[in-house]
Amino acid sequence: MTKIDIIGRGNVAFHLENALRGKADVAMVNPRTLEGVREDAELLILAVSDAAIPSVAARLANHKGIIAHTSGTTDLRAIHRESGSTGVFYPLQTFSKDVVLNYSEIPFFIEGDTPATTEFLTAIASLISPKVRPADSIQRRKLHLASVLSCNFVNHLWTLADRYLSEAGLDFADLFPLIRETAAKVERTSPFAAQTGPARRHDQVTIRHHLEMLKDSPELRNIYATLSESIGRTHPEIK
Amino acid sequence: MTKIDIIGRGNVAFHLENALRGKADVAMVNPRTLEGVREDAELLILAVSDAAIPSVAARLANHKGIIAHTSGTTDLRAIHRESGSTGVFYPLQTFSKDVVLNYSEIPFFIEGDTPATTEFLTAIASLISPKVRPADSIQRRKLHLASVLSCNFVNHLWTLADRYLSEAGLDFADLFPLIRETAAKVERTSPFAAQTGPARRHDQVTIRHHLEMLKDSPELRNIYATLSESIGRTHPEIK
Repeated sequence: MTKIDIIGRGNVAFHLENALRGKADVAMVNPRTLEGVREDAELLILAVSDAAIPSVAARLANHKGIIAHTSGTTDLRAIHRESGSTGVFYPLQTFSKDVVLNYSEIPFFIEGDTPATTEFLTAIASLISPKVRPADSIQRRKLHLASVLSCNFVNHLWTLADRYLSEAGLDFADLFPLIRETAAKVERTSPFAAQTGPARRHDQVTIRHHLEMLKDSPELRNIYATLSESIGRTHPEIK
Repeated sequence: MTKIDIIGRGNVAFHLENALRGKADVAMVNPRTLEGVREDAELLILAVSDAAIPSVAARLANHKGIIAHTSGTTDLRAIHRESGSTGVFYPLQTFSKDVVLNYSEIPFFIEGDTPATTEFLTAIASLISPKVRPADSIQRRKLHLASVLSCNFVNHLWTLADRYLSEAGLDFADLFPLIRETAAKVERTSPFAAQTGPARRHDQVTIRHHLEMLKDSPELRNIYATLSESIGRTHPEIK
């Protein structure tokens, strides 16, 4: 089995260890001390914060194994080495420690400094998931930006809805079936085709009424107006 | 079994008929002709567009049954009658005809012009789902506004992500596991606690980089900036 040291203590490190256990010879390493890095490890996965990648990589620069980070936003070249291979091993998922994930569904985006590195990292990711794709640093950044829209911003809209309903004595949990169906629908049809709602219908009466209801919440009102305008521009009016 | 005529030909009418079949004596009625409205129906459900509610209700005003609409945004008083009961029977879900829904998960929000009407409509909704709640027109409008944030706006962010990735030759379907997990997470923990991403971390380097990447897409750039600022204000910086 391939010897892989996972450098990190966060959610990504936790889940990569979980996903590779039994399929590779995996060891976890504390990124502060770097105690226990195995000299003969073929791959060091840096599952640390974006900001820590260059410094942790620098302390491991003389290691003979491939050094790969797991960041969506960080260039391959953030790992500086005199010699030895570098790569990226980016799992496109949001990770929480307390959650059981189906790792075989996670897409992995791979970049290597040489074709041989790319091939090696692809083989390792393929131990976890059948969805392994090559992606250069620019493509990976675009995937990360799209995941900010699709995950972080979406979750924030739910935060705003939760707060708005709580203030009215209503229960955000009553929206769970709607949220579940909204997320299920996007896998069955394109989100463009699935769009519904007042802005999609160019229903200015409802939009104006909602803006009026939000007059004491300028931040939410601004978000409502911005997204409604964008929906209106994206979907031509049906006459 | 209670005789219920469902006036409408859209997705809500289709699914209400499906959900009530076998539990009530249900008939579908075309809202244009109103042919086949049964004189002895105890309930007429107006599953028509918001704009059509007053006019369809006016043509049925002399009917002896309760007339209830299914709209989140429309006041109970949109149904004008000289005598006879009026109500609202609002299922909080997004409906597509081609989709099998678990009706027992859908919350119903009920309003009646009298306590007896509310009780009757509650009993009918309880044939479909255990989640039946009273809600006045103001509460129902707030639920509808929250569902615009949680469903329509969320779907639009996915539309923008889909378009952005397509233009880069990347595949939006690679985000499905992330979207699925994001939606699953909101049922396990509050969206406030679940928030992640560059804006949550106050990671200005990544935010600036993303804004730079979007410099040729002013609309998406504006949405990115607006939502990132809102996340930053909602979540104080961790120092």
